[in-house]
Amino acid sequence: MPKKLNFAERARFAKNSLARELFVLLHEKKTNLSLSCDVTSCQEVLDFAELLGPEICVLKTHVDILKDFSLDFVKKLEAIALKHRFFIFEDRKFADIGNTVKHQYSGGIYHIADWAHIVNAHILPGPGIISGLSEVGLHKNRGLLLLASMSSKDNLLDENYAEKTLKMAEQFPEFVIGFIAQKRLSDDPQWIYMTPGVQLESGQDALGQQYVTPEKAILENGSDIIIVGRGILKAKDPLNEAKKYRAAGWDHFYQHYQK
Amino acid sequence: MPKKLNFAERARFAKNSLARELFVLLHEKKTNLSLSCDVTSCQEVLDFAELLGPEICVLKTHVDILKDFSLDFVKKLEAIALKHRFFIFEDRKFADIGNTVKHQYSGGIYHIADWAHIVNAHILPGPGIISGLSEVGLHKNRGLLLLASMSSKDNLLDENYAEKTLKMAEQFPEFVIGFIAQKRLSDDPQWIYMTPGVQLESGQDALGQQYVTPEKAILENGSDIIIVGRGILKAKDPLNEAKKYRAAGWDHFYQHYQK
Repeated sequence: MPKKLNFAERARFAKNSLARELFVLLHEKKTNLSLSCDVTSCQEVLDFAELLGPEICVLKTHVDILKDFSLDFVKKLEAIALKHRFFIFEDRKFADIGNTVKHQYSGGIYHIADWAHIVNAHILPGPGIISGLSEVGLHKNRGLLLLASMSSKDNLLDENYAEKTLKMAEQFPEFVIGFIAQKRLSDDPQWIYMTPGVQLESGQDALGQQYVTPEKAILENGSDIIIVGRGILKAKDPLNEAKKYRAAGWDHFYQHYQK
Repeated sequence: MPKKLNFAERARFAKNSLARELFVLLHEKKTNLSLSCDVTSCQEVLDFAELLGPEICVLKTHVDILKDFSLDFVKKLEAIALKHRFFIFEDRKFADIGNTVKHQYSGGIYHIADWAHIVNAHILPGPGIISGLSEVGLHKNRGLLLLASMSSKDNLLDENYAEKTLKMAEQFPEFVIGFIAQKRLSDDPQWIYMTPGVQLESGQDALGQQYVTPEKAILENGSDIIIVGRGILKAKDPLNEAKKYRAAGWDHFYQHYQK
Protein backbone atom coordinates (compact mmCIF):
# COMPACT_ATOMS: atom_id res chain seq x y z
CA MET A 1 0.00 0.00 0.00
CA PRO A 2 1.61 3.32 -1.04
CA LYS A 3 1.63 6.33 1.28
CA LYS A 4 -1.95 7.39 1.73
CA LEU A 5 -2.93 10.91 0.74
CA ASN A 6 -5.28 12.75 3.01
CA PHE A 7 -8.73 13.72 1.79
CA ALA A 8 -7.72 17.30 0.98
CA GLU A 9 -4.89 16.03 -1.20
CA ARG A 10 -7.16 13.55 -2.93
CA ALA A 11 -9.60 16.32 -3.89
CA ARG A 12 -7.10 17.40 -6.54
CA PHE A 13 -7.44 14.06 -8.32
CA ALA A 14 -11.22 14.04 -8.56
CA LYS A 15 -12.65 14.70 -12.03
CA ASN A 16 -16.13 15.33 -10.69
CA SER A 17 -16.94 18.56 -8.82
CA LEU A 18 -19.18 16.89 -6.24
CA ALA A 19 -16.39 14.43 -5.42
CA ARG A 20 -14.02 17.37 -4.86
CA GLU A 21 -16.53 18.99 -2.52
CA LEU A 22 -16.99 15.72 -0.62
CA PHE A 23 -13.22 15.26 -0.16
CA VAL A 24 -12.95 18.80 1.17
CA LEU A 25 -15.90 18.25 3.50
CA LEU A 26 -14.37 15.03 4.87
CA HIS A 27 -11.11 16.84 5.51
CA GLU A 28 -12.60 19.93 7.12
CA LYS A 29 -15.44 18.37 9.10
CA LYS A 30 -13.24 15.47 10.21
CA THR A 31 -15.89 12.81 9.93
CA ASN A 32 -16.13 9.85 7.60
CA LEU A 33 -19.39 8.61 9.06
CA SER A 34 -22.40 8.23 6.80
CA LEU A 35 -25.81 7.65 8.36
CA SER A 36 -28.08 5.13 6.65
CA CYS A 37 -31.39 6.71 7.63
CA ASP A 38 -33.70 3.77 6.88
CA VAL A 39 -36.83 4.93 8.65
CA THR A 40 -40.31 5.06 7.19
CA SER A 41 -41.61 8.55 7.97
CA CYS A 42 -40.32 11.94 6.82
CA GLN A 43 -40.42 13.38 10.33
CA GLU A 44 -38.11 10.63 11.58
CA VAL A 45 -35.62 11.37 8.80
CA LEU A 46 -35.73 15.09 9.60
CA ASP A 47 -35.35 14.46 13.34
CA PHE A 48 -32.34 12.19 12.83
CA ALA A 49 -30.83 14.61 10.30
CA GLU A 50 -31.16 17.47 12.78
CA LEU A 51 -29.80 15.44 15.69
CA LEU A 52 -26.97 13.62 13.91
CA GLY A 53 -26.18 16.07 11.10
CA PRO A 54 -23.20 17.59 12.95
CA GLU A 55 -21.57 14.14 13.18
CA ILE A 56 -21.87 12.93 9.59
CA CYS A 57 -20.54 13.61 6.10
CA VAL A 58 -23.33 11.90 4.14
CA LEU A 59 -26.94 11.07 4.94
CA LYS A 60 -28.16 8.05 3.01
CA THR A 61 -31.87 7.82 2.22
CA HIS A 62 -34.34 5.33 0.75
CA VAL A 63 -37.12 7.73 -0.17
CA ASP A 64 -39.22 4.92 -1.57
CA ILE A 65 -39.80 3.48 1.89
CA LEU A 66 -41.16 6.79 3.25
CA LYS A 67 -44.90 6.49 3.70
CA ASP A 68 -45.46 10.26 3.53
CA PHE A 69 -42.84 11.53 1.06
CA SER A 70 -43.38 15.08 -0.20
CA LEU A 71 -41.34 17.74 -1.92
CA ASP A 72 -41.80 19.85 1.21
CA PHE A 73 -39.90 17.15 3.10
CA VAL A 74 -37.09 17.42 0.55
CA LYS A 75 -36.83 21.18 1.06
CA LYS A 76 -36.58 20.73 4.82
CA LEU A 77 -33.95 18.02 4.47
CA GLU A 78 -31.92 20.18 2.08
CA ALA A 79 -32.02 23.04 4.60
CA ILE A 80 -30.74 20.77 7.38
CA ALA A 81 -28.01 19.41 5.08
CA LEU A 82 -26.88 22.94 4.33
CA LYS A 83 -26.94 23.97 8.00
CA HIS A 84 -25.00 20.97 9.31
CA ARG A 85 -22.99 20.53 6.12
CA PHE A 86 -23.55 17.01 4.83
CA PHE A 87 -24.45 15.53 1.45
CA ILE A 88 -27.60 13.57 0.61
CA PHE A 89 -27.16 10.15 -0.96
CA GLU A 90 -30.28 8.42 -2.29
CA ASP A 91 -29.51 4.71 -2.17
CA ARG A 92 -31.67 3.92 -5.21
CA LYS A 93 -29.50 1.14 -6.63
CA PHE A 94 -30.57 1.86 -10.21
CA ALA A 95 -30.55 -1.40 -12.14
CA ASP A 96 -32.36 -0.90 -15.44
CA ILE A 97 -31.53 0.05 -19.02
CA GLY A 98 -30.37 3.61 -19.79
CA ASN A 99 -33.65 4.92 -21.14
CA THR A 100 -35.57 3.78 -18.05
CA VAL A 101 -33.13 4.97 -15.38
CA LYS A 102 -33.10 8.43 -16.97
CA HIS A 103 -36.79 8.73 -16.18
CA GLN A 104 -36.45 7.11 -12.75
CA TYR A 105 -33.65 9.50 -11.82
CA SER A 106 -35.18 12.73 -13.11
CA GLY A 107 -38.93 12.22 -12.98
CA GLY A 108 -41.73 10.48 -11.16
CA ILE A 109 -42.90 11.74 -7.79
CA TYR A 110 -39.40 11.85 -6.34
CA HIS A 111 -37.37 13.89 -8.85
CA ILE A 112 -34.28 12.32 -7.26
CA ALA A 113 -31.81 14.22 -9.44
CA ASP A 114 -33.14 17.54 -8.14
CA TRP A 115 -32.02 16.95 -4.55
CA ALA A 116 -29.79 13.85 -4.16
CA HIS A 117 -26.14 14.88 -4.44
CA ILE A 118 -25.19 11.23 -4.82
CA VAL A 119 -26.98 8.17 -6.17
CA ASN A 120 -25.75 4.64 -6.86
CA ALA A 121 -26.22 2.03 -9.56
CA HIS A 122 -25.51 -1.59 -10.37
CA ILE A 123 -23.40 -2.01 -13.52
CA LEU A 124 -25.25 -5.24 -14.36
CA PRO A 125 -27.24 -3.67 -17.26
CA GLY A 126 -24.00 -2.51 -18.95
CA PRO A 127 -22.54 0.95 -19.59
CA GLY A 128 -25.86 2.33 -20.91
CA ILE A 129 -27.04 2.70 -17.31
CA ILE A 130 -24.20 5.13 -16.55
CA SER A 131 -24.72 7.04 -19.81
CA GLY A 132 -28.43 7.37 -19.03
CA LEU A 133 -27.88 8.60 -15.47
CA SER A 134 -25.06 10.89 -16.58
CA GLU A 135 -27.31 12.60 -19.14
CA VAL A 136 -29.50 13.67 -16.22
CA GLY A 137 -27.05 14.20 -13.39
CA LEU A 138 -23.81 15.52 -14.80
CA HIS A 139 -24.94 19.07 -15.56
CA LYS A 140 -26.63 19.21 -12.14
CA ASN A 141 -23.26 18.67 -10.45
CA ARG A 142 -24.25 15.21 -9.14
CA GLY A 143 -22.08 12.14 -8.54
CA LEU A 144 -22.62 8.41 -9.03
CA LEU A 145 -21.35 5.52 -6.93
CA LEU A 146 -21.15 2.07 -8.53
CA LEU A 147 -21.86 -1.04 -6.48
CA ALA A 148 -18.68 -3.10 -6.55
CA SER A 149 -19.63 -5.40 -3.70
CA MET A 150 -22.46 -5.93 -1.24
CA SER A 151 -22.69 -6.92 2.40
CA SER A 152 -25.46 -9.49 2.03
CA LYS A 153 -24.86 -13.23 2.39
CA ASP A 154 -24.05 -15.23 -0.77
CA ASN A 155 -24.23 -12.16 -3.00
CA LEU A 156 -22.94 -12.52 -6.55
CA LEU A 157 -20.59 -9.55 -6.67
CA ASP A 158 -17.31 -11.46 -6.68
CA GLU A 159 -13.82 -10.08 -7.33
CA ASN A 160 -14.24 -10.47 -11.05
CA TYR A 161 -17.43 -8.40 -10.90
CA ALA A 162 -15.69 -5.75 -8.77
CA GLU A 163 -12.91 -5.58 -11.34
CA LYS A 164 -15.47 -4.96 -14.09
CA THR A 165 -17.03 -2.23 -11.98
CA LEU A 166 -13.68 -0.49 -11.69
CA LYS A 167 -13.14 -0.72 -15.44
CA MET A 168 -16.55 0.75 -16.09
CA ALA A 169 -15.94 3.61 -13.63
CA GLU A 170 -12.73 4.42 -15.48
CA GLN A 171 -14.82 5.01 -18.62
CA PHE A 172 -16.93 7.66 -16.84
CA PRO A 173 -14.60 9.52 -14.42
CA GLU A 174 -16.44 12.79 -14.87
CA PHE A 175 -19.63 11.34 -13.35
CA VAL A 176 -18.62 8.29 -11.30
CA ILE A 177 -17.13 9.36 -7.96
CA GLY A 178 -16.40 5.98 -6.46
CA PHE A 179 -17.80 2.74 -5.14
CA ILE A 180 -20.03 1.04 -2.67
CA ALA A 181 -17.57 -1.63 -1.71
CA GLN A 182 -16.30 -3.83 1.05
CA LYS A 183 -12.72 -3.45 -0.20
CA ARG A 184 -10.61 -0.86 -2.00
CA LEU A 185 -10.24 -1.80 -5.68
CA SER A 186 -7.24 0.29 -6.75
CA ASP A 187 -4.76 2.88 -5.50
CA ASP A 188 -6.20 5.58 -7.74
CA PRO A 189 -6.86 8.41 -5.25
CA GLN A 190 -9.82 9.87 -7.17
CA TRP A 191 -12.26 7.11 -6.13
CA ILE A 192 -14.25 7.39 -2.93
CA TYR A 193 -15.06 4.12 -1.16
CA MET A 194 -18.18 3.83 0.97
CA THR A 195 -18.82 0.66 2.97
CA PRO A 196 -22.29 -0.38 4.16
CA GLY A 197 -23.17 -2.94 6.80
CA VAL A 198 -20.88 -1.46 9.46
CA GLN A 199 -21.54 -2.08 13.15
CA LEU A 200 -19.31 -1.96 16.22
CA GLU A 201 -20.17 -5.63 16.70
CA SER A 202 -19.87 -7.87 13.63
CA GLY A 203 -22.70 -10.35 12.94
CA GLN A 204 -25.68 -10.95 10.66
CA ASP A 205 -29.40 -10.07 10.49
CA ALA A 206 -32.27 -12.49 9.78
CA LEU A 207 -32.26 -11.72 6.04
CA GLY A 208 -28.57 -12.25 5.36
CA GLN A 209 -27.11 -8.76 6.00
CA GLN A 210 -23.55 -9.27 7.28
CA TYR A 211 -21.84 -6.67 9.45
CA VAL A 212 -18.20 -5.60 9.63
CA THR A 213 -16.59 -3.40 12.26
CA PRO A 214 -15.30 0.11 11.46
CA GLU A 215 -11.78 -1.15 12.22
CA LYS A 216 -11.99 -3.90 9.62
CA ALA A 217 -13.72 -1.67 7.04
CA ILE A 218 -11.06 1.03 7.25
CA LEU A 219 -7.81 -0.59 8.35
CA GLU A 220 -8.12 -3.94 6.65
CA ASN A 221 -10.30 -3.14 3.64
CA GLY A 222 -9.15 0.41 2.94
CA SER A 223 -12.59 2.04 2.87
CA ASP A 224 -13.01 5.83 3.14
CA ILE A 225 -16.52 6.24 4.52
CA ILE A 226 -18.40 3.89 6.83
CA ILE A 227 -22.17 3.63 6.41
CA VAL A 228 -23.98 2.86 9.65
CA GLY A 229 -27.70 2.33 9.93
CA ARG A 230 -29.33 0.15 12.55
CA GLY A 231 -26.23 0.37 14.78
CA ILE A 232 -27.10 4.04 15.40
CA LEU A 233 -30.83 4.28 14.68
CA LYS A 234 -31.76 1.45 17.07
CA ALA A 235 -29.46 2.65 19.88
CA LYS A 236 -30.96 4.00 23.10
CA ASP A 237 -28.96 7.21 22.64
CA PRO A 238 -28.42 7.64 18.87
CA LEU A 239 -26.35 10.84 19.24
CA ASN A 240 -23.95 9.25 21.67
CA GLU A 241 -23.75 6.15 19.46
CA ALA A 242 -23.09 8.28 16.36
CA LYS A 243 -20.23 10.00 18.21
CA LYS A 244 -18.78 6.56 19.01
CA TYR A 245 -18.96 5.52 15.35
CA ARG A 246 -17.53 8.85 14.26
CA ALA A 247 -14.61 8.34 16.62
CA ALA A 248 -14.21 4.72 15.55
CA GLY A 249 -14.18 5.81 11.92
CA TRP A 250 -11.99 8.87 12.21
CA ASP A 251 -9.98 9.29 15.40
CA HIS A 252 -9.17 5.69 16.16
CA PHE A 253 -8.60 4.38 12.69
CA TYR A 254 -8.49 6.91 9.94
CA GLN A 255 -5.98 9.23 11.61
CA HIS A 256 -3.79 6.29 12.48
CA TYR A 257 -4.11 4.92 8.96
CA GLN A 258 -2.81 8.17 7.48
CA LYS A 259 0.56 8.04 9.24
CA MET B 1 -36.31 -29.83 -27.34
CA PRO B 2 -39.04 -32.15 -25.93
CA LYS B 3 -42.65 -31.85 -27.03
CA LYS B 4 -43.92 -28.55 -25.79
CA LEU B 5 -46.88 -28.52 -23.43
CA ASN B 6 -49.49 -25.86 -23.97
CA PHE B 7 -50.07 -23.21 -21.34
CA ALA B 8 -53.10 -24.99 -19.84
CA GLU B 9 -51.03 -28.13 -19.36
CA ARG B 10 -48.19 -26.19 -17.82
CA ALA B 11 -50.51 -24.66 -15.21
CA ARG B 12 -50.49 -28.03 -13.44
CA PHE B 13 -46.74 -27.74 -12.84
CA ALA B 14 -46.77 -24.29 -11.26
CA LYS B 15 -46.20 -24.20 -7.50
CA ASN B 16 -47.39 -20.59 -7.23
CA SER B 17 -51.09 -19.76 -7.55
CA LEU B 18 -50.53 -16.56 -9.54
CA ALA B 19 -48.44 -18.53 -12.04
CA ARG B 20 -51.29 -21.00 -12.44
CA GLU B 21 -53.73 -18.16 -13.07
CA LEU B 22 -51.37 -16.62 -15.61
CA PHE B 23 -50.97 -19.89 -17.51
CA VAL B 24 -54.76 -20.28 -17.64
CA LEU B 25 -55.16 -16.69 -18.80
CA LEU B 26 -52.59 -17.17 -21.58
CA HIS B 27 -54.41 -20.28 -22.73
CA GLU B 28 -57.92 -18.86 -22.61
CA LYS B 29 -57.25 -15.33 -23.85
CA LYS B 30 -54.87 -16.56 -26.54
CA THR B 31 -52.37 -13.78 -26.20
CA ASN B 32 -48.79 -13.85 -25.02
CA LEU B 33 -48.27 -10.13 -25.56
CA SER B 34 -47.21 -7.97 -22.60
CA LEU B 35 -47.35 -4.20 -22.95
CA SER B 36 -44.46 -2.26 -21.43
CA CYS B 37 -46.39 0.90 -20.61
CA ASP B 38 -43.48 3.27 -20.08
CA VAL B 39 -45.29 6.59 -20.14
CA THR B 40 -45.01 9.34 -17.57
CA SER B 41 -48.59 10.27 -16.66
CA CYS B 42 -51.28 8.16 -15.01
CA GLN B 43 -53.89 9.14 -17.59
CA GLU B 44 -51.69 7.84 -20.41
CA VAL B 45 -51.32 4.49 -18.63
CA LEU B 46 -55.07 4.27 -18.09
CA ASP B 47 -55.79 5.22 -21.70
CA PHE B 48 -53.39 2.61 -23.07
CA ALA B 49 -54.69 0.00 -20.61
CA GLU B 50 -58.27 0.66 -21.74
CA LEU B 51 -57.36 0.65 -25.43
CA LEU B 52 -54.94 -2.28 -25.46
CA GLY B 53 -56.20 -4.31 -22.49
CA PRO B 54 -58.17 -6.73 -24.69
CA GLU B 55 -54.97 -7.63 -26.60
CA ILE B 56 -52.57 -8.33 -23.73
CA CYS B 57 -51.92 -10.79 -20.93
CA VAL B 58 -49.72 -8.56 -18.77
CA LEU B 59 -49.35 -4.80 -18.45
CA LYS B 60 -45.88 -3.81 -17.28
CA THR B 61 -45.52 -0.56 -15.33
CA HIS B 62 -42.75 1.65 -13.96
CA VAL B 63 -44.75 3.57 -11.40
CA ASP B 64 -41.70 5.52 -10.30
CA ILE B 65 -41.62 7.40 -13.62
CA LEU B 66 -45.24 8.58 -13.24
CA LYS B 67 -45.25 12.28 -12.41
CA ASP B 68 -48.72 12.14 -10.84
CA PHE B 69 -48.93 8.71 -9.20
CA SER B 70 -51.81 8.26 -6.76
CA LEU B 71 -53.62 5.37 -5.13
CA ASP B 72 -56.73 6.48 -7.03
CA PHE B 73 -54.81 5.74 -10.24
CA VAL B 74 -54.06 2.26 -8.92
CA LYS B 75 -57.75 1.59 -8.25
CA LYS B 76 -58.65 2.64 -11.79
CA LEU B 77 -55.91 0.49 -13.29
CA GLU B 78 -57.02 -2.51 -11.22
CA ALA B 79 -60.59 -2.06 -12.47
CA ILE B 80 -59.41 -2.00 -16.10
CA ALA B 81 -57.21 -5.07 -15.49
CA LEU B 82 -60.23 -6.93 -14.11
CA LYS B 83 -62.47 -5.83 -16.96
CA HIS B 84 -60.07 -6.74 -19.77
CA ARG B 85 -58.45 -9.58 -17.83
CA PHE B 86 -54.75 -8.93 -17.64
CA PHE B 87 -52.18 -8.94 -14.83
CA ILE B 88 -50.16 -5.97 -13.60
CA PHE B 89 -46.39 -6.35 -13.47
CA GLU B 90 -44.41 -3.60 -11.75
CA ASP B 91 -40.97 -3.69 -13.33
CA ARG B 92 -39.22 -2.54 -10.15
CA LYS B 93 -36.05 -4.60 -10.57
CA PHE B 94 -35.47 -4.86 -6.82
CA ALA B 95 -31.74 -5.01 -6.19
CA ASP B 96 -31.09 -4.46 -2.49
CA ILE B 97 -30.68 -6.53 0.67
CA GLY B 98 -33.69 -8.42 2.07
CA ASN B 99 -34.53 -6.00 4.85
CA THR B 100 -34.63 -3.04 2.46
CA VAL B 101 -36.62 -4.65 -0.37
CA LYS B 102 -39.28 -5.72 2.14
CA HIS B 103 -39.97 -2.06 2.86
CA GLN B 104 -39.66 -1.03 -0.80
CA TYR B 105 -42.14 -3.72 -1.84
CA SER B 106 -44.74 -3.20 0.88
CA GLY B 107 -44.43 0.42 1.94
CA GLY B 108 -43.56 3.89 0.79
CA ILE B 109 -45.98 5.86 -1.35
CA TYR B 110 -46.49 3.05 -3.84
CA HIS B 111 -47.42 0.02 -1.71
CA ILE B 112 -46.42 -2.10 -4.71
CA ALA B 113 -47.33 -5.40 -3.06
CA ASP B 114 -50.94 -4.26 -2.67
CA TRP B 115 -51.62 -4.05 -6.39
CA ALA B 116 -48.80 -5.51 -8.54
CA HIS B 117 -49.53 -9.17 -9.26
CA ILE B 118 -45.97 -9.61 -10.46
CA VAL B 119 -42.68 -7.90 -9.62
CA ASN B 120 -39.11 -8.71 -10.58
CA ALA B 121 -35.71 -8.74 -8.90
CA HIS B 122 -32.01 -9.08 -9.61
CA ILE B 123 -30.44 -12.02 -7.73
CA LEU B 124 -27.18 -10.05 -7.37
CA PRO B 125 -27.67 -9.39 -3.60
CA GLY B 126 -28.04 -13.12 -2.91
CA PRO B 127 -31.01 -15.25 -1.76
CA GLY B 128 -31.94 -12.80 1.02
CA ILE B 129 -33.61 -10.57 -1.58
CA ILE B 130 -36.05 -13.37 -2.48
CA SER B 131 -36.69 -14.24 1.18
CA GLY B 132 -37.40 -10.59 1.93
CA LEU B 133 -39.81 -10.14 -1.00
CA SER B 134 -41.45 -13.48 -0.30
CA GLU B 135 -42.20 -12.49 3.31
CA VAL B 136 -44.31 -9.67 1.88
CA GLY B 137 -45.75 -11.11 -1.32
CA LEU B 138 -46.36 -14.80 -0.81
CA HIS B 139 -49.45 -14.55 1.39
CA LYS B 140 -50.84 -11.89 -0.95
CA ASN B 141 -50.82 -14.39 -3.81
CA ARG B 142 -48.10 -12.52 -5.71
CA GLY B 143 -45.38 -13.85 -8.00
CA LEU B 144 -41.74 -12.93 -8.59
CA LEU B 145 -39.74 -12.98 -11.82
CA LEU B 146 -35.95 -13.15 -11.61
CA LEU B 147 -33.80 -11.32 -14.14
CA ALA B 148 -31.74 -13.99 -15.88
CA SER B 149 -30.63 -11.82 -18.77
CA MET B 150 -31.13 -8.31 -20.07
CA SER B 151 -31.52 -6.78 -23.51
CA SER B 152 -29.07 -3.89 -23.03
CA LYS B 153 -25.70 -3.75 -24.78
CA ASP B 154 -22.68 -5.20 -22.94
CA ASN B 155 -24.74 -6.23 -19.93
CA LEU B 156 -23.08 -8.53 -17.38
CA LEU B 157 -25.74 -11.23 -17.17
CA ASP B 158 -23.83 -14.00 -18.94
CA GLU B 159 -24.77 -17.68 -19.18
CA ASN B 160 -23.09 -18.42 -15.88
CA TYR B 161 -25.21 -15.73 -14.21
CA ALA B 162 -28.37 -17.09 -15.85
CA GLU B 163 -27.53 -20.53 -14.54
CA LYS B 164 -27.20 -19.13 -11.00
CA THR B 165 -30.57 -17.42 -11.43
CA LEU B 166 -32.18 -20.73 -12.32
CA LYS B 167 -30.60 -22.41 -9.31
CA MET B 168 -31.87 -19.67 -7.03
CA ALA B 169 -35.38 -19.89 -8.50
CA GLU B 170 -35.38 -23.61 -7.75
CA GLN B 171 -34.88 -22.77 -4.07
CA PHE B 172 -38.07 -20.64 -4.02
CA PRO B 173 -40.57 -22.33 -6.38
CA GLU B 174 -43.55 -21.26 -4.27
CA PHE B 175 -42.83 -17.57 -4.92
CA VAL B 176 -40.69 -17.37 -8.06
CA ILE B 177 -42.83 -17.84 -11.18
CA GLY B 178 -40.18 -17.52 -13.86
CA PHE B 179 -37.67 -15.27 -15.55
CA ILE B 180 -37.05 -12.13 -17.47
CA ALA B 181 -34.81 -13.69 -20.05
CA GLN B 182 -33.69 -13.65 -23.62
CA LYS B 183 -33.48 -17.44 -23.69
CA ARG B 184 -35.18 -20.39 -22.02
CA LEU B 185 -32.98 -21.78 -19.23
CA SER B 186 -34.45 -25.25 -18.71
CA ASP B 187 -37.21 -27.57 -19.87
CA ASP B 188 -39.00 -27.39 -16.52
CA PRO B 189 -42.55 -26.40 -17.54
CA GLN B 190 -43.34 -24.48 -14.33
CA TRP B 191 -41.22 -21.45 -15.26
CA ILE B 192 -42.67 -18.60 -17.27
CA TYR B 193 -40.27 -16.75 -19.58
CA MET B 194 -40.87 -13.11 -20.43
CA THR B 195 -38.65 -11.38 -22.96
CA PRO B 196 -38.23 -7.58 -23.10
CA GLY B 197 -36.81 -5.52 -25.92
CA VAL B 198 -39.06 -7.03 -28.59
CA GLN B 199 -39.82 -5.12 -31.79
CA LEU B 200 -40.95 -6.22 -35.25
CA GLU B 201 -37.72 -4.69 -36.55
CA SER B 202 -34.54 -5.60 -34.67
CA GLY B 203 -32.06 -2.82 -33.86
CA GLN B 204 -30.82 -0.65 -30.98
CA ASP B 205 -31.71 2.62 -29.21
CA ALA B 206 -29.29 5.45 -28.36
CA LEU B 207 -28.66 4.10 -24.84
CA GLY B 208 -27.79 0.52 -25.73
CA GLN B 209 -31.23 -1.17 -25.70
CA GLN B 210 -31.10 -3.99 -28.25
CA TYR B 211 -34.24 -5.30 -29.92
CA VAL B 212 -35.17 -8.82 -31.04
CA THR B 213 -38.10 -9.82 -33.22
CA PRO B 214 -41.06 -11.83 -31.83
CA GLU B 215 -40.04 -14.66 -34.15
CA LYS B 216 -36.56 -14.88 -32.69
CA ALA B 217 -37.77 -14.45 -29.09
CA ILE B 218 -40.29 -17.29 -29.36
CA LEU B 219 -39.05 -19.71 -31.99
CA GLU B 220 -35.32 -19.45 -31.49
CA ASN B 221 -35.06 -18.52 -27.81
CA GLY B 222 -38.09 -20.36 -26.46
CA SER B 223 -39.71 -17.44 -24.66
CA ASP B 224 -43.36 -17.56 -23.53
CA ILE B 225 -44.35 -13.90 -23.35
CA ILE B 226 -43.03 -11.02 -25.46
CA ILE B 227 -42.77 -7.61 -23.82
CA VAL B 228 -43.28 -4.76 -26.28
CA GLY B 229 -43.02 -1.09 -25.36
CA ARG B 230 -41.95 1.59 -27.77
CA GLY B 231 -42.86 -0.61 -30.76
CA ILE B 232 -46.53 -0.17 -29.82
CA LEU B 233 -46.63 3.04 -27.79
CA LYS B 234 -44.86 5.12 -30.44
CA ALA B 235 -46.90 3.70 -33.34
CA LYS B 236 -49.37 5.92 -35.20
CA ASP B 237 -52.12 3.40 -34.46
CA PRO B 238 -51.17 1.60 -31.22
CA LEU B 239 -54.23 -0.71 -31.26
CA ASN B 240 -53.53 -1.92 -34.76
CA GLU B 241 -49.85 -2.33 -33.88
CA ALA B 242 -50.70 -4.28 -30.72
CA LYS B 243 -52.86 -6.61 -32.81
CA LYS B 244 -49.89 -7.17 -35.13
CA TYR B 245 -47.61 -8.02 -32.20
CA ARG B 246 -50.28 -10.24 -30.67
CA ALA B 247 -50.56 -12.10 -33.95
CA ALA B 248 -46.79 -12.27 -34.32
CA GLY B 249 -46.49 -13.65 -30.80
CA TRP B 250 -49.40 -16.07 -30.86
CA ASP B 251 -50.84 -17.00 -34.24
CA HIS B 252 -47.71 -16.94 -36.34
CA PHE B 253 -45.25 -18.38 -33.90
CA TYR B 254 -46.62 -19.81 -30.74
CA GLN B 255 -49.33 -21.94 -32.35
CA HIS B 256 -46.86 -23.25 -34.87
CA TYR B 257 -44.32 -23.94 -32.15
CA GLN B 258 -46.82 -26.10 -30.27
CA LYS B 259 -47.25 -28.63 -33.08
